[in-house]
Parts: sequence; C-alpha cells; structure tokens
Amino acid sequence: MAQLKAIERKLAENAKMINGFLARELSGQEPESLEKASLHLIEAGGKRLRPYMTIKACEAVGGRAEDAVPFAAAVEFLHNFTLVHDDVMDHDDLRRGKPTVHKVYGMPMAILAGDLLYAKVYEVIVRNRPSGMSPERLLESIDKITEATLLLCQGQALDISFPRASDVTVDDYVHMVGAKTSALFRACAQVGALAGGGSDEQVNALGSFAWDAGVAFQIEDDILGVTADEETLGKPVGSDLREGKKTLINIHALENATEEQRKLLNRAFGVEGASHEDIEAVVKTLEEVGSIAYAKNVADKYITRAFKTLDVIPDTPAKAELKTLVEYFVKRDY
Amino acid sequence: MAQLKAIERKLAENAKMINGFLARELSGQEPESLEKASLHLIEAGGKRLRPYMTIKACEAVGGRAEDAVPFAAAVEFLHNFTLVHDDVMDHDDLRRGKPTVHKVYGMPMAILAGDLLYAKVYEVIVRNRPSGMSPERLLESIDKITEATLLLCQGQALDISFPRASDVTVDDYVHMVGAKTSALFRACAQVGALAGGGSDEQVNALGSFAWDAGVAFQIEDDILGVTADEETLGKPVGSDLREGKKTLINIHALENATEEQRKLLNRAFGVEGASHEDIEAVVKTLEEVGSIAYAKNVADKYITRAFKTLDVIPDTPAKAELKTLVEYFVKRDY
Repeated sequence: MAQLKAIERKLAENAKMINGFLARELSGQEPESLEKASLHLIEAGGKRLRPYMTIKACEAVGGRAEDAVPFAAAVEFLHNFTLVHDDVMDHDDLRRGKPTVHKVYGMPMAILAGDLLYAKVYEVIVRNRPSGMSPERLLESIDKITEATLLLCQGQALDISFPRASDVTVDDYVHMVGAKTSALFRACAQVGALAGGGSDEQVNALGSFAWDAGVAFQIEDDILGVTADEETLGKPVGSDLREGKKTLINIHALENATEEQRKLLNRAFGVEGASHEDIEAVVKTLEEVGSIAYAKNVADKYITRAFKTLDVIPDTPAKAELKTLVEYFVKRDY
Repeated sequence: MAQLKAIERKLAENAKMINGFLARELSGQEPESLEKASLHLIEAGGKRLRPYMTIKACEAVGGRAEDAVPFAAAVEFLHNFTLVHDDVMDHDDLRRGKPTVHKVYGMPMAILAGDLLYAKVYEVIVRNRPSGMSPERLLESIDKITEATLLLCQGQALDISFPRASDVTVDDYVHMVGAKTSALFRACAQVGALAGGGSDEQVNALGSFAWDAGVAFQIEDDILGVTADEETLGKPVGSDLREGKKTLINIHALENATEEQRKLLNRAFGVEGASHEDIEAVVKTLEEVGSIAYAKNVADKYITRAFKTLDVIPDTPAKAELKTLVEYFVKRDY
C-alpha cells in the first residue's frame, strides 16, 4: 500500500511537470479558437500515465528524465488527439468530467484541434532532440510513434465496424485492444528507452512490457465495469452491459453460457432500460459462467508476462516504478 | 502552347507513377472499410501538382526523381488528408466529381481515413530514406512537412472562423491563403530539394518560389470564379459571389466600391438566390471597381517574384518545367 501511495504522488509530480510543457507548446496559436480547442482536453486533466511510462522507460535504461520530456509530451499529444477525434466519432458529450471539445467548440474545430495535436507530436520531438541521441534513433522514435498511430486508426475502425459484443470473438477482442490501447503504451516505452540510449534489446523488452500491460489495463477496466460502484466508475453500474459493450467479460459470457444462462444475460445485454435487478441477475450469471474469473485470470497472465519481459532490464528504482505503475493501474494488489 | 501541351503529358505520366505508389502504400489495411475510405479520394484522381512540384524540385538541384518519389507520395497523402477532413467540416458532398469520403463511408470513417493518411505521410518518408540522404536532412524534411500541417490547420481554422468576404481584409486574405495553400506548396518544393541533396540556399529558394506560386494559384482560382464558364469551373458561374466567398476580388471590391457600387454588389454578394442578371451586373461592377484587374495584377506580381527567386538555381530542364508548371496552372499565358 505504501508503494501505491508513493506512485500516486509521483504521478502527480510528473503530471505537473508535463502539463507545463504541454501548455507552453500549445500556447500562442492563431486563431485563438484553435488554441483554446487544442488546449481544452489537455487542461481537463488526466493522470498522464503514458508520459510517466515514457520517462520511467528512459530512466530504466540509464537515461535522464529530462531527455524524455519532449517524447512524454508527444505521447500525451497523440493520446489526446485520438480522444478528441474518438469523441467526435462517437458523439460523446463528456470526457474527464468536462464537455468534449466538439460540444464546446463545434465539430469542425474539434477535428482541427485533433489534427493540430497530432502534428505537434512530430514537431515537439523533431525540435527537441536530446544532445546524446543520434538522428537515426530519433527517426526510429518517429517510426514507432507513427506505427502506433496507424494501429490506433485500425483499432478504432474495428471498434466502429463491430460495435457489439455479439459481433466479435475473444481473439478479436485481444486484437482490437492491442491496436486501441497497447500500441500506444508500447510506443510510450519504446521512445522513452530510445531517448535514454537503451539497446535494441532493452527497447524491445520495454515495448513488450508496455504492450502486455496495456492489455491488462483494458481488461481491468472491463472488470471494474461490473464489480465497481458508481463513484469509482464515474458512470452508472452496468453501463457496459446495457450498451452490450465489447468487454472481455461480455464476449466470454456470450461464447460460454448455456442456453438458459444466455436467456438471463439477454435480459440486460444491450437493453438500454434494463433495471437494477436485471443488472444484478446478469452479474450473478457472469460469475456462474466464470467470465469475471476468466477475465481476471487473463489480465494476470498478461501482467506476469509483462513483468517477466523486464528481466533483461537491470534492477533500478525506475524499473520498480514501472512495475508499481502497472500494479497501481490494474489495481491487482488492492 | 507547345510547352503547355508538353506539361499536360508530363503531369499525366507523373500522376500514373505516383498513383501506383500511393495505392500500394494504402493497400492491405484492416479493416477493409478503412482501406477503402482512405483510398477513396486518392482514386478519384487529381493532377498531382504537388508531387510533380516535389519531383521537379529534386531534379532542379541535381537529384534523381526516384529519390523524391516517397516524398512526392507523402505530400499527396498530406493534401488528401486535409481535403477529407475539410469536406467533413464543410459538409461538402462532392470532390473531384465524386461523392466525398464521409458521404460514402460515414463521418467517423472519414475522420479516421484522414488521420490514417496523415500518419502515412510520416511512415512513407521515414521508411524510404534515399541512400544519399543523411538522417539529419530527413529530419529536416519531417520538420518542413509538420510546419506546413500546422499552418494548414491554422488556415482552415481562420477560414471557419471568418467565413465571409466582409469579415476580412486583403491582408487577412494573403495571410490565410499562405496558410491554406502556399504552406503545403512550399513544403513540396523543400522536401524535394532536400531529397535531391540541394544546398540550404536552394532549398529556401525553391520553397519561396513554391510559396509565391501557391498564392498566385489561389488568386487565379478566384479570377476563374467570375470569368470562366460553367464547364471550366465545374460549378455554376457566380457561386463565389452567391456564397459571399472570401476571394481576393470580392474583398477588394468591398473595400474599394463607392456607396452606389456597393449597393449593386450586394444584389448578389451572399445572396443565394441571385439571378443570372444580378450576377452579370455584379461582374460588370467588379470590372468598374477594378477588382478583377487588381487580382490579375497581384497574381502577376507573385509569379514574377516566384520566377526571380529561381535565379539562384542552375538552368536545367527541371527548372524550366517548374516555371511551365506555374504558367500552366495559373493559365497566365493562355
């Protein structure tokens, strides 16, 4: 628990530093509406998990945190770019507890703000190459970030094309989560390690670690969707069920339920008006089918594999912090 | 005239070569809907003026055309990315005579296709560095392209924020056209010259040439809007007037008309239902105010300056082709 308290403090310190950098990079743009639209979501907050991953990956290979700051800013710009566009695509009204960019500034300005945030990804890393980093390695970082973006586009396209749990298999799920979540986590660790002067083996290991952590992170989110209370979730309990969302739990349940269990599940799956009692009955059924335990087990396997990959990285405070970060956000040890 | 015929043939040959490269780069993507959406506008055609500019700039500094091909593809991806997103923002239904991407694949997939096209810009140049090009110069190319994108976002934001001719001055116009059109033209020439191993002086000169050519190109478009027939325009004569569009002619006229002339202009300016007679009367007034002659004069000045900038570039067929390209698309010598 002490370790987890410590990571919250470290994340907050890191966020403060990164936020200053992000705001400076976006300020002074013309017209003012574009500046405000591009700053809107950045200023809404967030834990800055991805920048933290970048900075710790840099330190874990013996680099200096300050050398990773532009890369940490870049991955946060990239993350925010995808969120702003996703919100337009999904017609979502709220993000981080604030109205989404398109709700405040209109759809055209939200698309532009996203485009601008993505362009800033490249500007910030090309113009802030650490003195000890070769141009070849900077190009490699650009390639990693671009590869992640292409996977993000692919993941979002899959998400749009197959919107419900009944459309996909567990394999599809893992594939989609890889593209939508893990690809960016991997790039965060890779560019941090590249900025820190890591060897190819270290860059790959940290990348694999972050990829697996990303999958576990998403599955944990799915688990919280049926086990957490409304306050923790920030949305009504059972939303994922009522929306028929593609969570690992829902997909597993649909694949493995008996005929009778399936009937029970369908009382709430994708049923907008499902009652509190329906939701409770469905959660009970999910437990009976073993879908929640299954999801926990899969997440655990990914975390175990993620930690194992770090064996090639020397034991340092940064390496320990990376592990604690994963434990913190998948809440495995709570 | 013979020169202009020749350039049409050269543009067509160039387009064929570039189109093959573009299609290969976009093929094999998953899901299929994303691949199709990202290919849609590319396959709708276009003269590929920007790739041609890149390739000729490369040759003009003594480089090989083949070394510039990935950069030529990149600038075309960038151009198409902005068009796809602009069409979403402007709710436009047609582009290059075909339904726009969002009309065919829906708004979410159009946003994603644009994002993907922009990511491809970086992928294609990072993964295809010509053997003779240093990593530093590749990074410089990436910076030029990113700078152009940021200006494009700014230009589009200005365009959205101040939609009518009466909202802006001639200076605003030149500023906006610079961001919306010239910035990308400049990047086309700069990255071509960088790929061809040009000196800094040559890269800058070709960039300035392309910037000025871009302004002239846009003004010529404005002139055609009131002087060409419907077949040449591909839209009804007088559309720019009925929409109250921010053309150099319209802005100049509003700034310089007498009280009486202004009354006449307002019979069609921004009046959707303006009759053919109203349009004819307004065009006559634009001539009396001197706005059409003014626009021609400004375009001429930009072309003269553009050509002058090329004095530092040795005389080669490629340099002559660049000049002919400008004469071709601003149709000055027709």
